[in-house]
Amino acid sequence: MKLLLTAFDPFGGEKVNPAQKAVSLVGNVGGIDIVKLTVPTVFRAASRIVIEAIRCEKPDAVLCIGQAGGRAAITPERVAINLMDARIADNASFAPSDEPIFPSAPDAYFSSLPIKKMVEAIRERGIPAEVSNTAGTFVCNELMYSVLHALKNEFPNTIGGFMHVPFIPEQAASKGANVPSMNINDVASAIEAAIAPIAEHLNS
Amino acid sequence: MKLLLTAFDPFGGEKVNPAQKAVSLVGNVGGIDIVKLTVPTVFRAASRIVIEAIRCEKPDAVLCIGQAGGRAAITPERVAINLMDARIADNASFAPSDEPIFPSAPDAYFSSLPIKKMVEAIRERGIPAEVSNTAGTFVCNELMYSVLHALKNEFPNTIGGFMHVPFIPEQAASKGANVPSMNINDVASAIEAAIAPIAEHLNS
Amino acid sequence: MKLLLTAFDPFGGEKVNPAQKAVSLVGNVGGIDIVKLTVPTVFRAASRIVIEAIRCEKPDAVLCIGQAGGRAAITPERVAINLMDARIADNASFAPSDEPIFPSAPDAYFSSLPIKKMVEAIRERGIPAEVSNTAGTFVCNELMYSVLHALKNEFPNTIGGFMHVPFIPEQAASKGANVPSMNINDVASAIEAAIAPIAEHLNS
Amino acid sequence: MKLLLTAFDPFGGEKVNPAQKAVSLVGNVGGIDIVKLTVPTVFRAASRIVIEAIRCEKPDAVLCIGQAGGRAAITPERVAINLMDARIADNASFAPSDEPIFPSAPDAYFSSLPIKKMVEAIRERGIPAEVSNTAGTFVCNELMYSVLHALKNEFPNTIGGFMHVPFIPEQAASKGANVPSMNINDVASAIEAAIAPIAEHLNS
Repeated sequence: MKLLLTAFDPFGGEKVNPAQKAVSLVGNVGGIDIVKLTVPTVFRAASRIVIEAIRCEKPDAVLCIGQAGGRAAITPERVAINLMDARIADNASFAPSDEPIFPSAPDAYFSSLPIKKMVEAIRERGIPAEVSNTAGTFVCNELMYSVLHALKNEFPNTIGGFMHVPFIPEQAASKGANVPSMNINDVASAIEAAIAPIAEHLNS
Repeated sequence: MKLLLTAFDPFGGEKVNPAQKAVSLVGNVGGIDIVKLTVPTVFRAASRIVIEAIRCEKPDAVLCIGQAGGRAAITPERVAINLMDARIADNASFAPSDEPIFPSAPDAYFSSLPIKKMVEAIRERGIPAEVSNTAGTFVCNELMYSVLHALKNEFPNTIGGFMHVPFIPEQAASKGANVPSMNINDVASAIEAAIAPIAEHLNS
Repeated sequence: MKLLLTAFDPFGGEKVNPAQKAVSLVGNVGGIDIVKLTVPTVFRAASRIVIEAIRCEKPDAVLCIGQAGGRAAITPERVAINLMDARIADNASFAPSDEPIFPSAPDAYFSSLPIKKMVEAIRERGIPAEVSNTAGTFVCNELMYSVLHALKNEFPNTIGGFMHVPFIPEQAASKGANVPSMNINDVASAIEAAIAPIAEHLNS
Repeated sequence: MKLLLTAFDPFGGEKVNPAQKAVSLVGNVGGIDIVKLTVPTVFRAASRIVIEAIRCEKPDAVLCIGQAGGRAAITPERVAINLMDARIADNASFAPSDEPIFPSAPDAYFSSLPIKKMVEAIRERGIPAEVSNTAGTFVCNELMYSVLHALKNEFPNTIGGFMHVPFIPEQAASKGANVPSMNINDVASAIEAAIAPIAEHLNS
């Protein structure tokens, strides 16, 4: 099995992106061929690069990782919606307001990853996890939507989805006392934990 | 310099107490003589044991650690109040309601530890920290109050105080997705970070 | 213009449903013909009754109101997803797990109401409001999805959507100190405020 | 019985202070003589004015009201501490850091009001309330401490304390969706509810 595992570069004034750091720490998971890729936090550009990588690498599964500052748990996303609505500008200074990603495409796509099994596998490692019902309306959602759109139309046998991760402590330390965070090794361990049920799902 | 470093055993249905686990992981800090002690989460009993240890060990400083489930940051406490008011029973099934700890003693004692410098030292390690203005009204507060009362009356040259720590991930994993937690190694590192300014304060 | 305005009966152990109480308080809004309807918090049954009412009443717009305990603001929903996944049973003791609402229907439908203008109109009355990107996976989402599905297929000229409202104070008073709530008159006023931009949208 | 009921003017960039608005709405409560007073949100000045009013009016009880933005419930305060530590400047541009209010005075004073009965009475009206263990370290705490200090030393038969109230909706509407608020009539009703047990306490 081959897995394309993507992350974003830092955005919104942050110096690091926990997704990028954690993906770089992900090690061997049961002999799965893991292809890692970091993409810019830029509407359209990120998804174009990931889809190009899918065409080149022809993975069996695609798992995209992104930062969701303020969440306390690892959150596999259930659904991506056909909308871009940004409160802050992306890394190319673009801040779309209520624009569809693809005007004539479906309103949403469900993740084709086994999200509940992923949550279970992460919790079994003693790390907080929960299914999320919204990937937001920023670049993370655009990437998830665009990838699922491409998989549906070009690669119907490839499964894919998105998983959000919390701030790491060094990001939260400069914010208020109530901002939750998660150690980067726990984030990496959670990603590794989530990969196993993806492989099982493909084999079943 | 000699430091008495105390923690509690698990309470409230939890299987672990992050304070206890973290204190056991605390290593060498600049040659300071650290005496570790775990006490039961029981009103009066915990403070009696810690005060007895102060009499035996004659430490220069006392730092008591406890769990504050729901907090996202390490929180040195500013003040302990002369009150016991428990929502849940302690580990001896005692749940006092609005009782003073010592009827004729002062309403409160401020921590004599350098709490703001402790916060700074913890944040410098990239770990979230903030001064807290309430240690609650459960066993943690009773221990802090009783120790400060004893220090004031018996050991005026010894400084002391309390620091709360968050749940660890394995505790939060079985709770809701919004419950923050902190890796046990980060908790231990934060305690080590907090000890240095205590030593400096004694030397100044 | 005719508006079908629906609410749910109490569920999840609550004695009241703020949606039901608030809808009953909604008064005249610019001469709009408002047809009010309370439906049971039951999967399928609620949507069947509302769709039947749409067929009878032939409204120009449908606005369904539901309770979102824990939210502090009025939240017009952006999207409904083709999924039923219940943590608690509905009022007919049904708790589906990861079931599609209609197996061969689209993954989601966007609200066809002017949600951002509704938020603006509510805030202009000094009441907190924000667009929500998830209506959850309980009966509220099922009703919103089923209504939008019916509108698309049977009544393409009728617009519709869903708006969640917070607990009222009497519900929050028996819960923790951090549970937000909103006065029932403010909830009713917010619904009235939201109706004006719906009428304008139809006239534009 | 005579009650001195105080509130603050707006601070921290707010256009209103819910304490001030609510106190102005408080009506007759069982024939109690209520003397209302608004004071500036300024360290020392507020307490000087209130203490002067106590000397003039000779009330049986003093209830000071202040805004605690971010709280969802009415919170009678349990204790005031001998400390000023401001994150933002007061309305006279003063922002003390870790300064005692009175250098040789006790570390804290407990409220002498029946705070748990006040909580009960407020909840009976269906309004969220809870005892708070920290009045913070800003002007609210300074006023509460200074008043309790004066009562203890000059007016031992007068009881007094402080109660924090949430933002009102018009304040929260311009903040994030998660900022809780409470209708100003509910805040006023809660203050009226809290006055009855104060009168009963004096009569008992």
